[in-house]
Amino acid sequence: MTKVDTILAHGIVLVMDEATKLIADGAVAIRDETIVAVDAADAVLGAYQADEVVDCAGCAVMPGMVNAHTHVPMTLLRGLADDLRLDVWLMGYIMPVEREFVNPEFVRIGARLGCAEMIRSGVTTFCDMYYFEDDVAQATVEAGMRAVLGQTVLIFPSPDAQSYEDSIEAGRNFIEKWKGHPLIVPAIAPHAHYTCPPDVLRACVDLATEYNVPLHTHVSETALEVEESRKQHGMPVVPWIKKHGLLETKLIAAHCVHVDVGEIRTLQRAGAGVAHNPSSNLKLASGVAPVVEMIEAGLKLGIGTDGCASNNDLDMFEEMRLASFIAKGVSGDPLTVPARATIMLATIGGARALHLDHLIGSLVPGKRADVTVVDLSALHNTPRFHRDPEAVYSQLVYACKASDVRDVWCNGRRLMRDRDVLTVDVPAVMAQAQEIARKIDAFLVAREGNVLDKLIAIGGLAQEETYEVQVKIPLDDPQGVTSSLRKPGISIERSSVRRQYDTYFSFADPLQGRIRYREDEVLGEGGDVKEVRSSLTLTGPVKEREFVRSVLLSRSRFTARADRSKRFYREYFRPIEERDVQKERQRWHIRYKETEFALNLDRLTLPERPGWYLEIKSRTWSPRDAEVKADLIRELLELLGLQGQRVTRSEYVDF
Amino acid sequence: MTKVDTILAHGIVLVMDEATKLIADGAVAIRDETIVAVDAADAVLGAYQADEVVDCAGCAVMPGMVNAHTHVPMTLLRGLADDLRLDVWLMGYIMPVEREFVNPEFVRIGARLGCAEMIRSGVTTFCDMYYFEDDVAQATVEAGMRAVLGQTVLIFPSPDAQSYEDSIEAGRNFIEKWKGHPLIVPAIAPHAHYTCPPDVLRACVDLATEYNVPLHTHVSETALEVEESRKQHGMPVVPWIKKHGLLETKLIAAHCVHVDVGEIRTLQRAGAGVAHNPSSNLKLASGVAPVVEMIEAGLKLGIGTDGCASNNDLDMFEEMRLASFIAKGVSGDPLTVPARATIMLATIGGARALHLDHLIGSLVPGKRADVTVVDLSALHNTPRFHRDPEAVYSQLVYACKASDVRDVWCNGRRLMRDRDVLTVDVPAVMAQAQEIARKIDAFLVAREGNVLDKLIAIGGLAQEETYEVQVKIPLDDPQGVTSSLRKPGISIERSSVRRQYDTYFSFADPLQGRIRYREDEVLGEGGDVKEVRSSLTLTGPVKEREFVRSVLLSRSRFTARADRSKRFYREYFRPIEERDVQKERQRWHIRYKETEFALNLDRLTLPERPGWYLEIKSRTWSPRDAEVKADLIRELLELLGLQGQRVTRSEYVDF
Repeated sequence: MTKVDTILAHGIVLVMDEATKLIADGAVAIRDETIVAVDAADAVLGAYQADEVVDCAGCAVMPGMVNAHTHVPMTLLRGLADDLRLDVWLMGYIMPVEREFVNPEFVRIGARLGCAEMIRSGVTTFCDMYYFEDDVAQATVEAGMRAVLGQTVLIFPSPDAQSYEDSIEAGRNFIEKWKGHPLIVPAIAPHAHYTCPPDVLRACVDLATEYNVPLHTHVSETALEVEESRKQHGMPVVPWIKKHGLLETKLIAAHCVHVDVGEIRTLQRAGAGVAHNPSSNLKLASGVAPVVEMIEAGLKLGIGTDGCASNNDLDMFEEMRLASFIAKGVSGDPLTVPARATIMLATIGGARALHLDHLIGSLVPGKRADVTVVDLSALHNTPRFHRDPEAVYSQLVYACKASDVRDVWCNGRRLMRDRDVLTVDVPAVMAQAQEIARKIDAFLVAREGNVLDKLIAIGGLAQEETYEVQVKIPLDDPQGVTSSLRKPGISIERSSVRRQYDTYFSFADPLQGRIRYREDEVLGEGGDVKEVRSSLTLTGPVKEREFVRSVLLSRSRFTARADRSKRFYREYFRPIEERDVQKERQRWHIRYKETEFALNLDRLTLPERPGWYLEIKSRTWSPRDAEVKADLIRELLELLGLQGQRVTRSEYVDF
Repeated sequence: MTKVDTILAHGIVLVMDEATKLIADGAVAIRDETIVAVDAADAVLGAYQADEVVDCAGCAVMPGMVNAHTHVPMTLLRGLADDLRLDVWLMGYIMPVEREFVNPEFVRIGARLGCAEMIRSGVTTFCDMYYFEDDVAQATVEAGMRAVLGQTVLIFPSPDAQSYEDSIEAGRNFIEKWKGHPLIVPAIAPHAHYTCPPDVLRACVDLATEYNVPLHTHVSETALEVEESRKQHGMPVVPWIKKHGLLETKLIAAHCVHVDVGEIRTLQRAGAGVAHNPSSNLKLASGVAPVVEMIEAGLKLGIGTDGCASNNDLDMFEEMRLASFIAKGVSGDPLTVPARATIMLATIGGARALHLDHLIGSLVPGKRADVTVVDLSALHNTPRFHRDPEAVYSQLVYACKASDVRDVWCNGRRLMRDRDVLTVDVPAVMAQAQEIARKIDAFLVAREGNVLDKLIAIGGLAQEETYEVQVKIPLDDPQGVTSSLRKPGISIERSSVRRQYDTYFSFADPLQGRIRYREDEVLGEGGDVKEVRSSLTLTGPVKEREFVRSVLLSRSRFTARADRSKRFYREYFRPIEERDVQKERQRWHIRYKETEFALNLDRLTLPERPGWYLEIKSRTWSPRDAEVKADLIRELLELLGLQGQRVTRSEYVDF
């Protein structure tokens, strides 16, 4: 009798080899980190003597599952902000919080939490992309899991690097440190083609090639991303990254939601791995990847959970079920992606996608002992039909839950025994995670309470003059004013004609002020749109003081170029009220007695008003200067023949 | 201090009233079957004295969930047959098994199993449609659950009725027995408009109206169903059932996957309830219901699991998650069906859909005490962010699992304590369920092993003559034969020209014989298709004996009209090989010496062969008669001038 460490006996063994062999009363023998034998239980128990025989009767014994794409430390951001659009979620919440909180400790705690959750749901290998991957690696090795870990590279500063050169350097150090480790495959992870310009992509490709390590990146996750690629590069994403050498590496492409048949073929020919993330793609409404076409093309396809912030868990049973359901529902074919094919995606498919199928993904002697034992006897899996041996696939995909996973081995080491995770101090990690969440809550509460802080969080802000002197006069006929502008004493510095589309966001607390989103269409001679500028202005509550003929307003003003959509700002700031104002504006910048004034001749189209309005404005940081300017406005009104005219006190938005 | 039975204290209370009020540290007081108070924990604990105070710290306290559509005894058919098309699944497996096994005992065991599973996942009310509903009711009451139970009515015989009149009568008795019961709302359940002709629908409507009970039916589950309705009735399904009075009842319409905006409005105006079943609709590839439009229209919308045979479990957490994900993914809008709206669908929405919102669906004093307590502190729900009180909805929908449900009350009675179901003997029911599954397995194994039994299971079979005498001769030019047919001694009884499209299914065991699916296009004078007939023929293995010039074949032959598609038979019989044969055939039925023969002059188009083939055939039950006919065929060949011609031994399919 040959000695082995462990025999898992009497379960239904899912070999997941080419023939998808099933052994009804089977056994798996493990010695050190290796699978020594897989056969009928009688045969294995007759030929090997084990230190421990684990009874797996009533269980499925299957290859440890492969989570082909995640950002494991993001477990700590689980449920941070849900039901938001991708950009609001990412730029409004995830990125500001990451800037503030992500450090080696955060990453280690998050990785431990994620490893515990994945072990519980039967995962033994995952593919990661995050910051401080050296700390992710340490936590992963402690937890006993196997992982492909990609150090993130971005063109802009990230929590662990001031520049992309720093990221690449950190990647090189990370790869040198971990290459050859029995559990960790270091990788380089350029975040995406749209966050990594060609030279950055090329530097990543060079590094992956030099060390022969995988390159993990996001590909064609959203339709918008593909549209932008077509617009900017004249081609969709796969040809673009091919052009920059990514397909010559051991590529792991996450998502691939919006790829066409040609791109699938290109990926297949290049031997690229693809990670399908059904929960994340649905939850963020990115779409549904063409999984049926990918399987037909023979692509190396696995399933991933994506990060917890967009899922909100790391449960491969949910991903399997969803992968199968959504393929059937979308294709209209209930026979597509059946249970057996789904289990393949979650095991050997994932192993192929991570370029690790020579080591893992099937229960074959000589491969690493990554094994998951799933209890099939739960109430929600009763009764079981035995007539068709293949029914075990259907039980696993359509009825099993993560809570049915009983035991897990990785690289021959037992990570879970009777649902008890052995390699992570779960209560301690949960407490640490909760403490970080408490701090993030406090940070966000402080920010959420303050519109200005939220504005600062998304960047690009400038403060403007506090004092504004303003007069506004309704006119039946603007003729007199426009001709008066040519009078001596007034010099016109520049003028323009524009259409302005303003949206005002207001908040429950009026002290928070008001945000104006403006699209400014500057018109040419023929009335054509020459240029569109968008801007964002936060104005604090107004303190008014009336002058003889004009009004002095003092308030805080912050402006920024609005480089995201009105929709983004609406969802990000969540105003309680929103009002639109539209007008046609003729604007003059004039100089009068060495002082600059803006004159606006406005015709209001929303809310529609007859006639015109003339505004004369000037701004300053000084209350003293404001009074001087108020006097000058009074003089200007006389010059323009408007003395004695009725003055309007309201802003257009309050009309 | 007012006395109550139980206070659930210190949980986050989800009231699910109009204002979707949340109480961060709340309490619910229960006396008898009623909710007495819902308020801040301090207030409730200060005003009421309870026999038992249950600490719900770290938990969500929410209305018991409502499973708005299921067939609860079908838990016993869970995983019976998966990855099949609806018709194969239903007519090939579910219905034959139901015909054989469904009886009152089956129904009671299945209902107990289903109740236990639903209680574990936080459901307190379900809406059922099955047979022997009186037994479902008894099992439900024992388990302490609330239910709307619909006695099924079909035009054809069902496991509990020989005719639809019997079903209606059973429905009347069932309603009279259970009407007014504190937990059971009896209902009538015409299965669907396509299985219940107008008079049957009308009888159900009359019954529902007479007793003022709900009418539960399937509506527009598949695109095909709607297409057929348009073809047969000139209108889609909702107008059709409206025409027959169903919208004047307390309607509960399951699925509504393929309904247009007008139909949604019609259902809404009628106050109909609709049950959305995302898992079932995806798994069977029926499609995705227009949930966003339904919610916008203010429809009474709930979520259901459908039966276990098409899901494969009764897990409302999975349904909630899927309902939200699929709405986002399909609409492309990540803001749609957010977590709070999803919880509404699973609670008050379901209550409205079942016309029970005056009693259940929200935690409001005076309503029935149907309460579910969900532990939010699991690893897969860590960490939790508290800054936004609404985050609890997101935790419940996006991260919680059925296994997080800790306690359940229904009608004031505790059904689960610390994850232990109190009202169902779970191990006993599981054992009974497994025993039934064993018997079903044996029944199906016997059937599956035998193609003939599978053919018999789907009905309409006739046995044909065992002996066939046949000769087949290749011809370069058929002219001689066709003119020889006019010779004296031969009388032509009838003739026809047809195109035949044959598909042969063969099986691993050649003793099982071969199935031929034939589409026979009978052509008119001008070559137009006059008629198409489809037939199915099972031929057993051939025993051959050669005669002088012809071949005697003896084998079993069974034929049936093929009233389902080739695709159905393919998926049902699962052949290991499939071959197509196509030909143009001129056929004569002739009489020669008082004996009938069939003459076929065939031109093979698939596999394509040059020239023609002449077949002369005759059949008989008697081997002695077969020999006589073989002699006559030899004479006929001489008459037709074909003596000495080469004879072909192969059938076309073996060419």
